[in-house]
Amino acid sequence: MARARDRNARGRNLEAAAGNGLIDRRALLGRGMMIAGAMGAGIGPASAGAEPLADDPWSLEVGDPMPLYQVPSKFEAKVARTLSNPNFEPRNSHARTPHHLLDGATTPNGLHFAINHGGVPTIDPEKHRLVIHGLVKRPLEFSLESLSRYPMTSRVSFLECGGNSAPMFSPEPMQETVQALHGLVSCAEWTGVKLSTLLEETGIDPGAKWFIAEGADSPHLSRSVPVKKALDDAMIALYQNGERLMPGNGYPMRLLLPGYEGNMNVKFLRRIKLVDQPALSMYEARTYSQILPSGKAYRFYFLQEVKSFITSPSHGGKLKGPGLYEISGIAYSGTGRIEKVMVSADGGQSWAQAALQEPVLSKAFTRFRLPWRWDGGPATLQSRAWDEAGNVQPTRAEFVAARGELAKPAPVLSFPNQHYNSITSWGVGTNGEVKHVYA
Amino acid sequence: MARARDRNARGRNLEAAAGNGLIDRRALLGRGMMIAGAMGAGIGPASAGAEPLADDPWSLEVGDPMPLYQVPSKFEAKVARTLSNPNFEPRNSHARTPHHLLDGATTPNGLHFAINHGGVPTIDPEKHRLVIHGLVKRPLEFSLESLSRYPMTSRVSFLECGGNSAPMFSPEPMQETVQALHGLVSCAEWTGVKLSTLLEETGIDPGAKWFIAEGADSPHLSRSVPVKKALDDAMIALYQNGERLMPGNGYPMRLLLPGYEGNMNVKFLRRIKLVDQPALSMYEARTYSQILPSGKAYRFYFLQEVKSFITSPSHGGKLKGPGLYEISGIAYSGTGRIEKVMVSADGGQSWAQAALQEPVLSKAFTRFRLPWRWDGGPATLQSRAWDEAGNVQPTRAEFVAARGELAKPAPVLSFPNQHYNSITSWGVGTNGEVKHVYA
Repeated sequence: MARARDRNARGRNLEAAAGNGLIDRRALLGRGMMIAGAMGAGIGPASAGAEPLADDPWSLEVGDPMPLYQVPSKFEAKVARTLSNPNFEPRNSHARTPHHLLDGATTPNGLHFAINHGGVPTIDPEKHRLVIHGLVKRPLEFSLESLSRYPMTSRVSFLECGGNSAPMFSPEPMQETVQALHGLVSCAEWTGVKLSTLLEETGIDPGAKWFIAEGADSPHLSRSVPVKKALDDAMIALYQNGERLMPGNGYPMRLLLPGYEGNMNVKFLRRIKLVDQPALSMYEARTYSQILPSGKAYRFYFLQEVKSFITSPSHGGKLKGPGLYEISGIAYSGTGRIEKVMVSADGGQSWAQAALQEPVLSKAFTRFRLPWRWDGGPATLQSRAWDEAGNVQPTRAEFVAARGELAKPAPVLSFPNQHYNSITSWGVGTNGEVKHVYA
Repeated sequence: MARARDRNARGRNLEAAAGNGLIDRRALLGRGMMIAGAMGAGIGPASAGAEPLADDPWSLEVGDPMPLYQVPSKFEAKVARTLSNPNFEPRNSHARTPHHLLDGATTPNGLHFAINHGGVPTIDPEKHRLVIHGLVKRPLEFSLESLSRYPMTSRVSFLECGGNSAPMFSPEPMQETVQALHGLVSCAEWTGVKLSTLLEETGIDPGAKWFIAEGADSPHLSRSVPVKKALDDAMIALYQNGERLMPGNGYPMRLLLPGYEGNMNVKFLRRIKLVDQPALSMYEARTYSQILPSGKAYRFYFLQEVKSFITSPSHGGKLKGPGLYEISGIAYSGTGRIEKVMVSADGGQSWAQAALQEPVLSKAFTRFRLPWRWDGGPATLQSRAWDEAGNVQPTRAEFVAARGELAKPAPVLSFPNQHYNSITSWGVGTNGEVKHVYA
C-alpha cells in the first residue's frame, strides 16, 4: 500500500528543483499529496479509529504540580549543552548548543552557548556597577536600576564565537555532530539600552577612537571596539528572550555587538573606557589574530561572515528508508539579512532555492527548509547562504585557499582556528547513515 | 548639580507629545540630552574613574561550572510564575507570567503561562500518538517521528487564556500586579506541522464542518474548532522557542490556533476528529459561554481581541522621584498586527503615540515604549491599542456596558469572567507609588 502511494505521489509529478531528489520549495503547499505514503515510513492508516481511544498510562493518572520556573521534560535530557571542561579544570569552558535537536530560529535560554574563562561569576545585581570613563566629557557610573530608566530597545541577534566551526580546519572531516562543529553560535532576543544613548550622556572627546570593554569576572576579560560600532548598534543588554540574562551569558549586563565575534560581546560588563587606540589585550594580540596562508594576520577581524549549515538531516542521524524528508538548517550573517539559501543534494552539482522562514531579520538566525525525496542512493547535502550585501558563503576549497587549514587532525586549540564559514557537507550512505564529508 | 542638569534638559525643550509629561517617542534619539541629570536619580558623575577599578568579591574568585541546561541567577528568584493552586488540590492550576519583571516581546519558556486541569502529565514521546479520524477519507495515526518528516513551519504567536484579566470584571480595581491581572498570556516562537498539511493526507469528507481536538492528559480536555481554522493557520506545535514544548505547555505536541482563546489550543494532543457539528464539551457549554448584559451568550467566541497593558511602571512599583522614565508595555491582537498604541498620562484626556518595537508580527506580542517626564504630581497611565483591521481596545466604561461586570469584588471563578480586553489604568501617587485604578 505504501508503494502504491509512493507511485501515486510520484504520479503527481513533484517538480524537481535540482538533482538527486530536491523538490521545489512550494511543491508541497496545498497539493494534496500523500506524504505519509510517499514517505514509506510506517505511518500507514490508523487502526485507532475506535471509540474511545485506548488510554496510555498518563491518561489514567493525575499529573505533576506546576513549577515556579519550568524546564524541559525528563525525556529531553539529551537536549543539553555539551561541556568542553566537565571537570572544571583551571582553563576555559565551552557549552555548545545542540542545534541538531532544535528547530525554529530561537535558541532557548537554557541552551544558549557560552564560553567562560573563569567560571560563571555570582554577581549581586544590586551591587554591580557599570563605569563609562576615559576620553569622555563626564564619566558616569550606572547601576542596574539607573539603566532601567533609559529608553530600552529590543533586537534579535545571533552571537557566535570567532572559533565556532574550528574543527573544520582539520584536513579530514571530523565525525562530529552539528553541536560539536557549529554549537558555538546561538540566537536570542536581547533588550537593553543602546550604548550610543549612554555616550550621549557622558559625551565623547574628539580623540576617542576606540573603547575598551571589561568584564567583572575574575579574568577581567577586555576587548577593544571601534567607537563607530558604539554609535551604530551596540547595546548594553539586560534581558535575553524576555528575562534577565542567564548567568553564563553575562548576568546582570553584557555588551552586545550584533554581528561581531562573540568574545567582543563582553559579559558581566563593568567598564567601558574610551581611548585613542586599541588596548591589544590578549584576545586581540594572540587568540583572535588569525594567521593567513599569505603570512599576514587578520588582526581586528571582528565580523562574523555569512554562513549556513543543515541541522536536519545531519551527522549522527539515520534516515529510515527512502521517501520524503525535509532538509532544514540555519543561516545568518554579521553583515545583515540573509538574501537566499541554496541547497544541493549532489555535492554541489545542482542547487535548489530553500524557503526562508519569515521574518528574515538582520544579523539574526534565519531558518531555511526544502523538501527532499531520498531515493535510497548516496547523497551529499550542502547549504550555501547569500546575505543582502551580496556576500556568499565560500566552498571549503575556496575557504582553505584563502585562510588555510591544519596540517593534520588536531585539537581545536591549534591554529588556524578562527572565523571558519565555508559550506558544510553531510554524506548520506545507502544505509541512511549521515556522515560529515568534505565535498 | 542634578537640578542644574534638570534645568538644562528642560532648557532643551523636549517636545511634549501629550499632557502630564509624555514626550515624543523620537525626542530622545540622538539629542545628546542629559537624562542622568534630568532623571535626578542619583546617577551622578562616577567617582570610579581611578585605575584599576575597585574589585567586587566576584571579581576576585573563580566562578561556578557551567550547567548542561542553564537557569536564571539565584538573585532572580522573584521572577517566577505565581501558582493559583500551590498545594496542588484536586482542581485546576494556573501559573502566571511575571510581565512586570520582563522586557522585550518574547516570553522565555521557563515563565510561559500554563493552566492545567489534571496536573502536568509525564508523557513518553516515543509512545504518544496523534490520531486524525472521523469524517476523513483515510484515518491516520502519527508518531512524533513521523510528524518530523513533514514540512515544518515556525511562527511567533501569543497564547492567552479566555479568562485572562478576569479580575478586572470587579467593580472596584483589585490591587494586584500585572502578573495577577494579565499573567495568563505569553508569546513564543512555535514550530511544527500545519494541520492543513496533515488534513491533505487524511482527506476531508464534505460533511466535516468542525473538528474536536482532545488531549491525552487525564481530563481528556476537548474543544470544537471550525474546519476553516484548521485550513488557515492551525499548527501541530512540536517546538517552543526552539526546543521541544515545555511539559506544562503540552509536551510532546499541542494544537496551536493563533489568536484563539488558550483553552482551544489543546495540549498533549492525541486526537483530532472531524465532525459535522461541535461537541458542546464542558468548556464550550459552560466555562467559555460568556453571558452578556443583554442576556445572550457569547458561545463559540474564540477570538482574543485587541489588547494592551503597561508593564512598567505598573502596580506595585514605586517611582524614585520626579524625572524621566520609560513607559513600556505589550500589545497584541488575535486579528492580526498591531497598528498603533497610544499612551496617556492624564487618564485619557490626551494621548501620545508610542514607538512599536520591530518586527511587528501578526498575532504576536508587540512591545511599545514612550518616554515620560514625571513632575511628581498625580498621574494616570493608560495604553490603548489598535490592530490592522481597525479594531480598537475599549475603555473600561465601554467594555462594561457591552459585557457587564461583577456586582461586587469576587473570586475569579465568578461570572462574567471571559475575554476582558479594556484599557488598564495605573495611578501614580505623589509618593511615587503605583496603584491599579479605574479611569
